[in-house]
Amino acid sequence: MATIKDVAKIAEVTVTTVSRVLNNRGYISQITRDKVHEAMKQLDYQPNEIARSLFRRKSNLIGLIIPNVAHPFFAELTSYIEYYAYKAGYKILLCNSYQDSVKEKDYVEMLKRYQVDGIIMGSHTVDTSDYLSPTLPIVALDRTFTNNIPFVTSDNYHGGVLATNLLIDRGCKKIAHISGPLEINTPANKRYQAFMDVVLARKVNFVIKQTKLDIFDGYEKLAYKLFEDYPDIDGVFASSDMIAASIIHVANLVGKDITKDLKIVGYDDINIASLIVPSLTTIKQPIEAMGELAVKILIDLLEKKEVDIENILPVTLVERKTT
Amino acid sequence: MATIKDVAKIAEVTVTTVSRVLNNRGYISQITRDKVHEAMKQLDYQPNEIARSLFRRKSNLIGLIIPNVAHPFFAELTSYIEYYAYKAGYKILLCNSYQDSVKEKDYVEMLKRYQVDGIIMGSHTVDTSDYLSPTLPIVALDRTFTNNIPFVTSDNYHGGVLATNLLIDRGCKKIAHISGPLEINTPANKRYQAFMDVVLARKVNFVIKQTKLDIFDGYEKLAYKLFEDYPDIDGVFASSDMIAASIIHVANLVGKDITKDLKIVGYDDINIASLIVPSLTTIKQPIEAMGELAVKILIDLLEKKEVDIENILPVTLVERKTT
Repeated sequence: MATIKDVAKIAEVTVTTVSRVLNNRGYISQITRDKVHEAMKQLDYQPNEIARSLFRRKSNLIGLIIPNVAHPFFAELTSYIEYYAYKAGYKILLCNSYQDSVKEKDYVEMLKRYQVDGIIMGSHTVDTSDYLSPTLPIVALDRTFTNNIPFVTSDNYHGGVLATNLLIDRGCKKIAHISGPLEINTPANKRYQAFMDVVLARKVNFVIKQTKLDIFDGYEKLAYKLFEDYPDIDGVFASSDMIAASIIHVANLVGKDITKDLKIVGYDDINIASLIVPSLTTIKQPIEAMGELAVKILIDLLEKKEVDIENILPVTLVERKTT
Repeated sequence: MATIKDVAKIAEVTVTTVSRVLNNRGYISQITRDKVHEAMKQLDYQPNEIARSLFRRKSNLIGLIIPNVAHPFFAELTSYIEYYAYKAGYKILLCNSYQDSVKEKDYVEMLKRYQVDGIIMGSHTVDTSDYLSPTLPIVALDRTFTNNIPFVTSDNYHGGVLATNLLIDRGCKKIAHISGPLEINTPANKRYQAFMDVVLARKVNFVIKQTKLDIFDGYEKLAYKLFEDYPDIDGVFASSDMIAASIIHVANLVGKDITKDLKIVGYDDINIASLIVPSLTTIKQPIEAMGELAVKILIDLLEKKEVDIENILPVTLVERKTT
């Protein structure tokens, strides 16, 4: 395989000059630059990216820590993050934390050892901020840290208001909200707060059920229990489309008519929301814009630009057939 | 931050000795090893993984190239691949090719520059084998190469037989098969071959429709067109659950009763297959076992072990409510 020395020889320059061309450092005339590029092409020279990143102190790697890419919301978000990172010349090291704080910590340490340029952190265990080094640029997704780490989220409170008001406007008298784990302080909990504010203000009966994130198997059990304990529930605001899909599934099995007996609003607007039968009314998170913005902010941090700490993108109500 | 020199000083050994401990090279007594580990702990020393990988010529990085992680099948597969890679001490560099052969080639070059130890290749553009270097270990997922690259797939032919026979056994007289792109030579095309063999042998009318992979938007249009062109179709064998879900969705909109007017079998058994209404009869691919095996074979290649070229895992029929 061709080495940097071979390139220097063919281009009739020094190794240092080739290295400068590769790393865009110091003044190099266009003629010299062209000669080096010509030689690289001729030799099919592959610069060793690892050696280069040691030299430049830049790996062009971004660590992405999420609960689990098997969850469609995170799959779609990951797809957009990878897309925009690739466009900007960065690669994604994917880490599924499975909501395990030990694994999450382990990933952060690993990513530091791999000299990632920064981390996009979409995992949600209780205490992460204490082991995040302030020198490593981090953007949080759907979570807030105490120490001025910029975060990207969508307008969860407004989403909760839209969903709850819709169910009441459609005539629901007793509404269940199925939330994520409320003991973890995440922006998503604002959906719950909005739900509470609206049902109390409009004097509607309500039930709250908490779920763990991403445990598909648990959703069905929860839905059965909900209908058993509260047979008179006529509205459900689920904090993810996957939960809402499970509710529809079980409602169907126990013979509830959607929308006569039960109205349902989901959250996220993942691809399958419009696909399931009946198609799901939901609060659309701007998943692509969230992924794009998380990448942009991380790159701004790397380039020492000013960034906003709070980045809250708008949500919209998409009414389909479950309300 | 602590350096290797600091560790050597505290442990009262040479830098070379610390480096040997870090890289497990040469003979080091247990006492010396313990002293070095103690010093590392005391100093909270983080070995620079990039420098180490240059030294060891091993990055512990695996490149994963797939069409798009937003597709639930690839999302679930990626989740398992990341899980088993992490268990074995490897990290995943995620690349979505979007079925673009230029991007695919670009990713392969990029992964080589990043000195990945190997690649798991689940992307499907027409000609990849010519730019795959024989020195870089590769495992193919659901595709075959000409040059003896080991591949992992499931028993697509048997899956096609199971699906088609079931539809005929349930009384279907005119069956559509919605396949992936047949011009690309992939093991998944065996589903189509099996379908053809069964409908011809059992003398049943049939229709073939090809789709591009992962273009969700296109599935619905295709379903409308299918029902318009062939209103008498009473069975569909879809080559993915996402396609099947679109068929169910559109069948519902045009007023077809499942299962009276139309019976449907999907493929993959992704999480949502059991969740949608009616829950989907499908051919279950062993997604976890496929991901685990792909990682195992790649690591076997890295350790110069013998591996099988053909790795075909069994599929099963999961009958639910659409047949």
